[in-house]
Amino acid sequence: MESKSIEEITERKSDAFEPLVIIEFTSGTKQAAIEWLMAHIQESKLDGGAELEVKMMVPQHQQATILYIGASLDRYLVSAEMMQMRKPHTAGDLREFTISDLENFKGSGEMSTFFTTAEKQKIILKELNSIRASEFDLHIPGYENYKLYPGKRIVKEYLRREVAVRLFPLHEEEFIDKLGKEWYMPRQCCSVQPIGKIQKYFGEKIAMYFAFLGLYTISLIPPALIGIIYFITYWRSVYREAIFAVFNLVWSTIFLESWKRYCSELSFQWGTMQSVVAKFEEPRPDYFGKIGKNPVTGKAEPVYPKLKRVLRFYLVSLPVTAMFLGIAFVFMLTYFWMQAWADNVYFKNKTLLQYPIIFAPTIVYAISIGILNAIYRKVASLLNDFENHRLQSSYENHLIMKLVLFDFVNCFISLFYVAFYLQDRALLRSHLACLLITSQVTGQIKEAMVPFFFVKRRSQQMERAMKKAASFKTGEGTPEVDYTVQKQASLESTMDQYEGTMDEYLELFLQFGYVFLFSSAFPLAALWALLNNITEIRTDAFKMCRIFQRPFAESASGIGAWQIAFEVIGLISVITNCALIGMDPEVQHLMPSSMSTVNMVLIFVAVEHVVLAVKAAVAFFIPDVPRWVEVEMARVEYQSKQALIKENVAASYRKKQMLRKMFLSKEN
Amino acid sequence: MESKSIEEITERKSDAFEPLVIIEFTSGTKQAAIEWLMAHIQESKLDGGAELEVKMMVPQHQQATILYIGASLDRYLVSAEMMQMRKPHTAGDLREFTISDLENFKGSGEMSTFFTTAEKQKIILKELNSIRASEFDLHIPGYENYKLYPGKRIVKEYLRREVAVRLFPLHEEEFIDKLGKEWYMPRQCCSVQPIGKIQKYFGEKIAMYFAFLGLYTISLIPPALIGIIYFITYWRSVYREAIFAVFNLVWSTIFLESWKRYCSELSFQWGTMQSVVAKFEEPRPDYFGKIGKNPVTGKAEPVYPKLKRVLRFYLVSLPVTAMFLGIAFVFMLTYFWMQAWADNVYFKNKTLLQYPIIFAPTIVYAISIGILNAIYRKVASLLNDFENHRLQSSYENHLIMKLVLFDFVNCFISLFYVAFYLQDRALLRSHLACLLITSQVTGQIKEAMVPFFFVKRRSQQMERAMKKAASFKTGEGTPEVDYTVQKQASLESTMDQYEGTMDEYLELFLQFGYVFLFSSAFPLAALWALLNNITEIRTDAFKMCRIFQRPFAESASGIGAWQIAFEVIGLISVITNCALIGMDPEVQHLMPSSMSTVNMVLIFVAVEHVVLAVKAAVAFFIPDVPRWVEVEMARVEYQSKQALIKENVAASYRKKQMLRKMFLSKEN
Repeated sequence: MESKSIEEITERKSDAFEPLVIIEFTSGTKQAAIEWLMAHIQESKLDGGAELEVKMMVPQHQQATILYIGASLDRYLVSAEMMQMRKPHTAGDLREFTISDLENFKGSGEMSTFFTTAEKQKIILKELNSIRASEFDLHIPGYENYKLYPGKRIVKEYLRREVAVRLFPLHEEEFIDKLGKEWYMPRQCCSVQPIGKIQKYFGEKIAMYFAFLGLYTISLIPPALIGIIYFITYWRSVYREAIFAVFNLVWSTIFLESWKRYCSELSFQWGTMQSVVAKFEEPRPDYFGKIGKNPVTGKAEPVYPKLKRVLRFYLVSLPVTAMFLGIAFVFMLTYFWMQAWADNVYFKNKTLLQYPIIFAPTIVYAISIGILNAIYRKVASLLNDFENHRLQSSYENHLIMKLVLFDFVNCFISLFYVAFYLQDRALLRSHLACLLITSQVTGQIKEAMVPFFFVKRRSQQMERAMKKAASFKTGEGTPEVDYTVQKQASLESTMDQYEGTMDEYLELFLQFGYVFLFSSAFPLAALWALLNNITEIRTDAFKMCRIFQRPFAESASGIGAWQIAFEVIGLISVITNCALIGMDPEVQHLMPSSMSTVNMVLIFVAVEHVVLAVKAAVAFFIPDVPRWVEVEMARVEYQSKQALIKENVAASYRKKQMLRKMFLSKEN
Repeated sequence: MESKSIEEITERKSDAFEPLVIIEFTSGTKQAAIEWLMAHIQESKLDGGAELEVKMMVPQHQQATILYIGASLDRYLVSAEMMQMRKPHTAGDLREFTISDLENFKGSGEMSTFFTTAEKQKIILKELNSIRASEFDLHIPGYENYKLYPGKRIVKEYLRREVAVRLFPLHEEEFIDKLGKEWYMPRQCCSVQPIGKIQKYFGEKIAMYFAFLGLYTISLIPPALIGIIYFITYWRSVYREAIFAVFNLVWSTIFLESWKRYCSELSFQWGTMQSVVAKFEEPRPDYFGKIGKNPVTGKAEPVYPKLKRVLRFYLVSLPVTAMFLGIAFVFMLTYFWMQAWADNVYFKNKTLLQYPIIFAPTIVYAISIGILNAIYRKVASLLNDFENHRLQSSYENHLIMKLVLFDFVNCFISLFYVAFYLQDRALLRSHLACLLITSQVTGQIKEAMVPFFFVKRRSQQMERAMKKAASFKTGEGTPEVDYTVQKQASLESTMDQYEGTMDEYLELFLQFGYVFLFSSAFPLAALWALLNNITEIRTDAFKMCRIFQRPFAESASGIGAWQIAFEVIGLISVITNCALIGMDPEVQHLMPSSMSTVNMVLIFVAVEHVVLAVKAAVAFFIPDVPRWVEVEMARVEYQSKQALIKENVAASYRKKQMLRKMFLSKEN
């Protein structure tokens, strides 16, 4: 294990250019803008560049210019150290990568595979984002109206102004083929997802989503089985629904606690476990403020007063969100009022001409809610930007909260209205079934049918691309970029961009609500959800691998505010289910007839509190972190403490030596 | 800042013997036992001794033998390093003490005051506890029936068998005089407690108690003021009680959250902040099991299977505790039944002869509950020992839970019975006032009057001791231990031992329950509690300084399970107060008369849920750790991480150097 210098390590490989990230310009993009960006990508870090390797290609058949971006091995090594990337160490744990300790990291024997492509692409993105406008860059070259100011991230600005149309990392064909076989092939439908490989290829954030989806799907099996048994047996008892509801309530808690444990295992294995330092990491790219100093690392970074953020949240975001919630509520009321009116009109005059009128309110409501939803999403995103969160995680958590609140009102308020205001059990059951099944069928169409269409479209595109590709071959000069890479890049540029996990979680969140909030009214909900999710996993997987451009890997230590959102639904479902059962006339008849209604209500309130207490106890007694993770974390902390002591000792020894030398030299 | 070797540092002082801890034997103790222990205390660590300094004195006027124990400076230094004692570092934070880094710890310039007496006494206790029986020690010398087995802690065994009667650290007269002036003097009654000094002198655990008591007392001021206003103004409104109750409920949450923040500040400042490593620290002295390996530090220690502990808890402790709770409940029912019977008897035949009969049930109940309580406490302690908890903190938390459960049932169940079964508001008010005031008056007598008596008794003892002391002077030979120390030791040996903070917290817990559980029924409760606590602080302080033997300092990072106990009371008080207000006929009359009772109940249930949600939101949005503590913690973690990286680099550099040398030597 003779150690080598960086020069030795990187020398052999520096000639092989491996393009991993693509920037695409439109045919109309001014040449000055392209060249200026290219220069900055190549320029050394000291001159404010990204110090990456870049090749420009202009396929003759089209005017679009494509930049192929890669980096030298020493660039990857230096950046990985700067980013404090965590890599598996031969000591057995994950450690922050340092070049001087390179040989003690696993896999350092073969440098070409030391970093995964996802890691390399993450590094390239980080470096691209580090290109900022200097004081001399007043506007994007060639576009005098697109002003810049010092410190502005240039690549982001190119994309925002649509000077560049696309920035995406390339897929890795070999890996994705293997991954796909293990992941979405039909015969895999009952096997465990290859979460480790997903994390390696797509990053922790997406892997977390699939891990969560997987565990959630498995945990739907028991309630689904009970639902089936209930459906088949026609066992009639007033306890029937109560038993199912209590089981569901406790089960949902167990599921969420198990997820916490699983999640902490994953994030420990992936080295993304949140430490107290994480709160003081570099701020997210869009964070603005006066340049100050990070109180922990001492590095320069923007600082924005907390008070301002809090004021913006309470004085702007909160009222605006509340207003939208109010509007959604009014829409719902109007809908029920219009529906009653329409039913009335039709009832009075049952002609075929009047028939469409009973569907009109639903259609109007659906459309107006759709419009309101679209507007709200834009507004929520703007508000969230406006709040100027320092960390990506807190930015996302606030966005989640905004979307969840609105969707909760939007999707569930009508159920609450039916269940507790109209108190119509039959309507509740049909309404719930209708909402759940409609949302799943449309979801399946969007996610399984549309991909199928995409695949077809893509194969046609492939053919066209092949024709284009033929034109490369006949082009003049030797292409600097590998022919297959060119083909791949032009194929993948036609793919859709992955929109992030937000909508996927939101879908699961609503489904979770449909299944658990009123589970005593519709016990088959879990079965529907289970069937949906089994296909959902595979279609999502297929989409990730084949339909979408590869996303940049993002790290994550959990599912963030979604955990809280699911837990709150769990709590609310205790109230709703107890209320539903308490309101059931069959159950009420079971009580001694001498009992007053008030005492009956009090009994149900007492039961509700007991269930809440049981939930709290279950959550309290299941540790959030499995013991082995705790042991490993403690071991790492213990070792670093010991190292700190050693360091102090060494430092004090060096000081002593120095003093002794000074002393001796004075004496002489 | 020329560095010195340990020998240099310790040389000058090693002759001055400073006795800090006393072991006292009875007049009947066999000489062999005393000499054997003395030998072991002095023996070197390698031979299984404690390597401490000890002087034996036999005052002529009494047969009791007293051992004066101290240690040399180098013993303190070595032990402090072994114990990973945290001391303030010149870098600004607290670090685990290491001798080689000694000069960089604050106060190392003056070695005689580098360790506080509390730290020295902690070290001595630790070393005394490290004396264990070897395979040759079959019994305590001189007592053939008092068997020992290898590994048994000998000092503990001496005390348990009452071979030695007392082990206590000596007070520090000068410090305690200064501390007393700042702490319990009457003119200090409105100033802040000197928490820092208390921590230095009595250790973190006791300082935490006083910090908690202080914050709790201050936070009682607003509810007490409102209580006074209510009492004076006679403002009559149905909202009156509701407003007070809601204020109290939210206020109690704010208090508990503020305490969390204050507590984390203190434990950060004192270096007792729990890290994940803390869970894997050395087990508590009484922990037993097969000798295994600590999974984190790798050191040998007893290991006991978790399953066994869990089984013992669920199969033994839980049923036994439940049984006692049941008995207490039956006692309460019997009491109310007997009372009703007695009232009835008296009502039928109102003669003076029959009069005592209406007090009989209360007296019988009080006595039987007292007996039951005493039995339960013994049983709870035995059960807790039986559960064999690894950490002192988890041992204490389980004991707290056991005591809290029983005392909750014991003290509050009758209130619940009156409030919700008898539904008698007037009786509830008088019963509550009676319970609160009785417990406080008896408490005050126990804690303020009895100390006063103690002081008197003590001054008499002082006189007698002076006479005894005179006999020392006339004794033969020069006493090896300073005359004033001998006097002090014989005085303090007559003092009572401090029983720990458990009962103090329990008292506060019950008071908290009386104030908040039924606050709408008796708004003056907070005022009573406030007045009680203002004197409580000072009498407790006086007791700590003047009445009790000095306790050994114990570290603590918070108030442990008490936090949860207080929070649970806070939650329960939401339910009780909402129920109380909902059951109030005045409030019920306020509702529209068209409203059915069921809807009224539902409204109160809704209000209760809203209050619970507000409490949860308050708890969620107030961060448990203040920002500055978070910054400092992150900074420490960041630095130790950086140190780990440096260490790795240095290690890999050393390895390279070594390999290079080997390589060169082979070549030559």
